[in-house]
Amino acid sequence: MLPLAISMGDPAGIGPEVLARAWALREAYGLPPFFAIGDRQALTAVWDGPVETLEYPADAGAVFSRALPLVQVDDPGDIVPGVPNLAGARCALDSLELGVGLARGGMASGLVTGPVSKVQLYQIGFTHPGQTEFVAERCGVSATRAVMMLAGPSLRAVPLTVHVPLADVPRLVTRELILTRARIVARALVRDFGIERPRLVVAGLNPHAGEKATLGREEAEIIAPAIAELVAEGLDVTGPLAADTMFHGAARAKYDAALCMYHDQALIPLKTLHFEDGVNVTLGLPIVRTSPDHGTAFDIAGTGTASPLAMIAAIQMASACAARRLVLPAQVAA
Amino acid sequence: MLPLAISMGDPAGIGPEVLARAWALREAYGLPPFFAIGDRQALTAVWDGPVETLEYPADAGAVFSRALPLVQVDDPGDIVPGVPNLAGARCALDSLELGVGLARGGMASGLVTGPVSKVQLYQIGFTHPGQTEFVAERCGVSATRAVMMLAGPSLRAVPLTVHVPLADVPRLVTRELILTRARIVARALVRDFGIERPRLVVAGLNPHAGEKATLGREEAEIIAPAIAELVAEGLDVTGPLAADTMFHGAARAKYDAALCMYHDQALIPLKTLHFEDGVNVTLGLPIVRTSPDHGTAFDIAGTGTASPLAMIAAIQMASACAARRLVLPAQVAA
Repeated sequence: MLPLAISMGDPAGIGPEVLARAWALREAYGLPPFFAIGDRQALTAVWDGPVETLEYPADAGAVFSRALPLVQVDDPGDIVPGVPNLAGARCALDSLELGVGLARGGMASGLVTGPVSKVQLYQIGFTHPGQTEFVAERCGVSATRAVMMLAGPSLRAVPLTVHVPLADVPRLVTRELILTRARIVARALVRDFGIERPRLVVAGLNPHAGEKATLGREEAEIIAPAIAELVAEGLDVTGPLAADTMFHGAARAKYDAALCMYHDQALIPLKTLHFEDGVNVTLGLPIVRTSPDHGTAFDIAGTGTASPLAMIAAIQMASACAARRLVLPAQVAA
Repeated sequence: MLPLAISMGDPAGIGPEVLARAWALREAYGLPPFFAIGDRQALTAVWDGPVETLEYPADAGAVFSRALPLVQVDDPGDIVPGVPNLAGARCALDSLELGVGLARGGMASGLVTGPVSKVQLYQIGFTHPGQTEFVAERCGVSATRAVMMLAGPSLRAVPLTVHVPLADVPRLVTRELILTRARIVARALVRDFGIERPRLVVAGLNPHAGEKATLGREEAEIIAPAIAELVAEGLDVTGPLAADTMFHGAARAKYDAALCMYHDQALIPLKTLHFEDGVNVTLGLPIVRTSPDHGTAFDIAGTGTASPLAMIAAIQMASACAARRLVLPAQVAA
């Protein structure tokens, strides 16, 4: 398999150090070959291990056992950990853009993206809500069809709506959106996760999933009909379930992914259970793309305290998904 | 200390059996003396252990070591586990009413309420949203000031709004409500839980707690000003916090209770972590009142599979709170 590409994220955040630490732990965690895309000085500022700058990404496999392979983007100048600047934001965006290009062009088996600062990116003209939408656009996929899934060892959760005020959620939850997202999730669980017949559950929007429409009508009018349609298509979909009782251990054992109505409904259980090793994976793309589920953490960058576990988990998941795509390209359509 | 009163809840639900099983485990869990209020036949239908009907609740202490002490209410006739009827609903309401009366009258050190069916209670003229509001009214406390807290071994969470549609939540979250509830929670943590200087955290309403008002303005306009006011009063209150990152282990270690904006924001983490042993405790009442955090579970009533752990936890918590009230009556005002 080709190496994975890992964009470093903001060079002043914890991206460089978790990436370097993941490489240092490559044997303990059985990590596949990967190469970093970003800035050499950002790495050496926080890490004294070996880095080898590549001329061609294809050389990463040969270098990986002795040094962290790096594809250098335009030099952003001096980077100070914890102190973001615009040159660093440009470096982060260049790394992301190059990473997508290499994955799209068949020079990497998949893409893992390090954490960026949206506030910084907006100042250099970035117009997407986040990296996911940028990657989707570069892959020619509409943002609606690029589905964010948060995954930890015991839970996969998909928020139907994401970065919107809670007050907007009820009107954004539509039958069409549930249908589109559920179909993409089901297909991706087959193709990328090797689950032959994925079991999806769908959360209700209201307390107790509306308690027979006495605590809200969205379940009866929107969610249940959408589920019925998905079931009629042959998918294994259950719900709407009361959100508070669907995430304990025995409940989680009964499904492969939970479709949630809003950001916190998905992310509260995910981060309560898997704060250190949650992975953000984008479903529905022609490339494999994962990301550690944490931010730039400028406040601790360079202090050596950032945990590489989420980066390691993101690398492992990207590798597993990419390996399945190698096997299955003709059997399941993108 | 006086014995605790435990209302049986709906006699056709799992209330009788978890209560009986808790008594059977009294030594293993070091449970203090308690007596059941409800129907003898409902107990014997699901349990073959010893039951002794009391003439006076004060006799419970002497009976407790050899039999489950019972205060019988009006005989509801034959009760079949799993098959609720109106006579059973009347029995549940009588038990609850008597339990409040005995706790109010100083004949029990506190009240633990078994699970009732609201659907059944509504059919016999019950007009309160739930047992909590009924108990509050009987204690002369307005429903706003009777605060529901869910507590497990590693988390205490208070939902600011409870059984309302999600779409109504944003307009129900007011500065006044946050102030009232936070003050009651802080006082109860001192008086009933023995925490000298309680640390409260307050969740945001929107994703990322509004992300500097770009994902919703409630944090900036309502929640943060309320917190500032509480801090000015001398309370230890932090927030608004991003709801998704406030419930993992390291985060929970930093506070004694979390004030949440809506039902699922509090109950998702609570039941994800403590599905089996969550306790519902009502703060702000002149009596101690707890309840196992589960329903009647008519579907499994009588099958012997219901876990008594939540009932046991509710008894332990009521006992601990009641013991602290004995010590502190004059030091902290109700």
